[in-house]
Amino acid sequence: MKINLLNQVKQQNPLAFNLANNVTIQDVANGINAIGGSPIMSSEVVEAKDMVAMADSVTINLGTITEMQFEQMQVVGRVANELDKPLILDPVAVAVPYRFKHCQELLAELQFAVIRGNAGEIAALAGEKWQAKGIDAGDGDGDLVAIAKRLANKQHCVVVVSGAVDIVTDGQLVTKIYNQTDLFKLHVGSGDMLSSTIGVFAGVTANYYEAAQAASLVFAVAGQVVAEQMKQPLAGSFGAQLIDELYLLTEATVAEKSKYEEDENGK
Amino acid sequence: MKINLLNQVKQQNPLAFNLANNVTIQDVANGINAIGGSPIMSSEVVEAKDMVAMADSVTINLGTITEMQFEQMQVVGRVANELDKPLILDPVAVAVPYRFKHCQELLAELQFAVIRGNAGEIAALAGEKWQAKGIDAGDGDGDLVAIAKRLANKQHCVVVVSGAVDIVTDGQLVTKIYNQTDLFKLHVGSGDMLSSTIGVFAGVTANYYEAAQAASLVFAVAGQVVAEQMKQPLAGSFGAQLIDELYLLTEATVAEKSKYEEDENGK
Amino acid sequence: MKINLLNQVKQQNPLAFNLANNVTIQDVANGINAIGGSPIMSSEVVEAKDMVAMADSVTINLGTITEMQFEQMQVVGRVANELDKPLILDPVAVAVPYRFKHCQELLAELQFAVIRGNAGEIAALAGEKWQAKGIDAGDGDGDLVAIAKRLANKQHCVVVVSGAVDIVTDGQLVTKIYNQTDLFKLHVGSGDMLSSTIGVFAGVTANYYEAAQAASLVFAVAGQVVAEQMKQPLAGSFGAQLIDELYLLTEATVAEKSKYEEDENGK
Repeated sequence: MKINLLNQVKQQNPLAFNLANNVTIQDVANGINAIGGSPIMSSEVVEAKDMVAMADSVTINLGTITEMQFEQMQVVGRVANELDKPLILDPVAVAVPYRFKHCQELLAELQFAVIRGNAGEIAALAGEKWQAKGIDAGDGDGDLVAIAKRLANKQHCVVVVSGAVDIVTDGQLVTKIYNQTDLFKLHVGSGDMLSSTIGVFAGVTANYYEAAQAASLVFAVAGQVVAEQMKQPLAGSFGAQLIDELYLLTEATVAEKSKYEEDENGK
Repeated sequence: MKINLLNQVKQQNPLAFNLANNVTIQDVANGINAIGGSPIMSSEVVEAKDMVAMADSVTINLGTITEMQFEQMQVVGRVANELDKPLILDPVAVAVPYRFKHCQELLAELQFAVIRGNAGEIAALAGEKWQAKGIDAGDGDGDLVAIAKRLANKQHCVVVVSGAVDIVTDGQLVTKIYNQTDLFKLHVGSGDMLSSTIGVFAGVTANYYEAAQAASLVFAVAGQVVAEQMKQPLAGSFGAQLIDELYLLTEATVAEKSKYEEDENGK
Repeated sequence: MKINLLNQVKQQNPLAFNLANNVTIQDVANGINAIGGSPIMSSEVVEAKDMVAMADSVTINLGTITEMQFEQMQVVGRVANELDKPLILDPVAVAVPYRFKHCQELLAELQFAVIRGNAGEIAALAGEKWQAKGIDAGDGDGDLVAIAKRLANKQHCVVVVSGAVDIVTDGQLVTKIYNQTDLFKLHVGSGDMLSSTIGVFAGVTANYYEAAQAASLVFAVAGQVVAEQMKQPLAGSFGAQLIDELYLLTEATVAEKSKYEEDENGK
C-alpha cells in the first residue's frame, strides 16, 4: 500500500478532468481540490480534446447521463485512450436499462484504468443477479470479491467495490479496506467523490492498482476521522467536514488509522 | 395530522424521482436521503419510463426549465399518471412568462397530486394578481387560503403555500402550520427541498393531503429546531444543519414542537 | 471606496440574473441571497429577454460553457446591452482554446461593465503570456496592474483581477485590496461568487468601478473574517461559513478591517 502517493498528489497537483453528474459536481470539485488535485469540468464535446490533453486523468460519471453527455463521454474516452491518460468509470445506477446499455457500449470500446461502484453497480456490470435500488447498493448474496475479480478480468482493469468493506482488485490481487463510516451512505456524493479521488491518484502513477488502493484508503480514513469526531451522525455537515479532512489528512494519520488486508487472495 | 408517516418513510425508504433544477439539486438529493427516502435524478427523456416505473413518487421542479427538460417533464408526467405514481409540482418563478406558459401546458395535461409553491407562485397559477420577484414570494393582498383553495379545486389536487405560515389544502380541508424560521428564506433551495420532501411522503401513502400535511410539518419543525440552536442567523450553515436535522428528527420532537391548526375552514 | 453600497444592496435587494456554471451554481445563488441580492438562474434561451428585463444585472460565467449556453450568452448579452443592464463576465479557464474563441466573440460584440478573473484568465484576455492551469491562476511574471489596465482600456470596462492582492481598475484608476485568505483558493467557487457579488453591487449603482471596488472589498473582508475565526484551514466548511459571513457582515466591520490602496496609479 503506497500511502505516500498522498504526498505525491499534494506535490504534483494533478489536473483531474471530470465528466461529473450534476447532482454532486460541486462536492466532487471541492474534494479534488482539497486532496491536492486541480479539478476541471466541461459539458461541451467540442472542447473534449483540449481538456483531455491538459488533464492528468479523466473520470466519467454516469449519474445524470444524457444522449449528449454520452456522446461527450465517447469522444473524451477515445482521446484519453489515445493519449494514454487514465480513464476512471463511476457507473452510477447502472442497473437502469438505459444506463446499462450505454455503459456496455463504453466498456466495449474504451480501456478503463479503474471502475468504482457500489455492490449493486459492480454486480450488474459483472452480469450477476443483484437487487439494486436506484443509486443505492441493494442486496445480493454473491461473493463480492469473486464478482469484482470477474469484472476486473473481463475489462482488464482495476475494480473497486465500495461499501461496508471496500474491495480493490486488478483481477488477481485483492485488497480489503475496513476503514469506514455509515455516514458515507447518508451523504449523496460520497461514491462520486471516491471515484474522482481515485482519478486524482491515478494522475500521479501509472500503477492504477496502487492508485486505487491508496485513494480508497485515504478516502475511507478521512470519512472515519470525521465520524469519530461527531457526537451524533450529521448527514448534512458530513459533506463539508469530509472535504475539511481530505485537506487536513496527513500520511501519518492514514498510516496510524488504516485497517486493511492486502493481496490476501492474490497470486 | 399523521406525524407517524415520518416513521413509515424511514421504514419504507421510498424511491423519490426528481426532475430537479440544477441550482439546488444536491441539497434536494441530500434532503431526500436524510429524511429516509432514496433520491434518483435524471436529465434524459429516454430513460423516463424506467425511472418512473421504479419510483414511488415523481417531483417536477421548474427552477431551471429548458425546452428539453419540458419535453422530459411531459413524458415523465404522462408515465407517472399512467402508472398512478404521485406527481408533485414545484412551479419555481412561474410568474416569468415562459415558465407560466409551459406550466399551464403541464397543468392542462397532467394530474398532479400536490403543487407546492410560495405565495407569488401559487397566486400566479390561481390567476391572482401578485407582485412576485424572481424566485421570491413578493407581495399581494389576496387571501392566501382562498387562493390556494381555488387552485386546488381547479387542478383537483392538494396545494401547499409555504411562507411565514404554511397552508395545506385539498380545496376543502385546510391546515395551517405555524412552525417556521426566517432562515428558510435565507437559504436558496428550502422550497425545493420542501417539495421533494412532500414527494417522499407521497411515496408511502395514497392520501396526498396527509402526505403534504406531514411533510410540511416535519420540514418546518426541522428548520425551526435548527434555528433555535443558532445564536445568530447563519445563512450558509443552515443548509447543512437542516439536512442534519431532517435525519435526526424524531416523531416525538415533531409532536412536541408542532404548532398547527387543522381543517379549520374544512367541510 | 463606497462601502455604503453594501447597505444599498440590502435595502434595494437587486435581482441578479446569472448564467452560472453548473459546478458552483448553488454557492453562487446562496452568496447572492446572503449579501442582500435576489438570485435568478436560467438555462433556456427562450426566456432570455424576460429574465434580463426583470433583472438589475446580468453575470455570465464560462465555467461549463456549451454551444447551447454560448448561444444563450449571446442573446442575454445583447438584451442586457439594449436595456442598459450591467453585464459582468467571469472568463473561467479561458486559456482553454474553445473558451478563448467564444469569449473573444462575446467581447467583440458585447459591452461588459466588469470582467473579473484570476491572473491567468485576465492575462489570457489581455494577450499576455501566462502559464495558467485549468481553473487555477498559474504563474507569470508580467505586471498585473499593467495587464489589467490594458484589458480595461481594450474593452472599455472595469477589470478585476482577484488573487493574493485584488486589483480593480477602469483602465486609469487602480485600487489594490489587501484583505485576503488562502481559503479562497481551497474552495472551488470563490471566484464565481466574487463575480456574482460584483453583479449584485452593479445592480444598485451606475458607477461600475465603485461597484467592483466595494464588492471586491466586502467579499475579501468576509473571507478574511471567516479565516480569522478558524483554528485550522477548513477547506469544506469555509464555503458555508463564507455565506454566513456575507449575510452577517456590516459596513462597520468592513470599514474596520479594510486594507486597500485606492487610485494610486490613477490620473
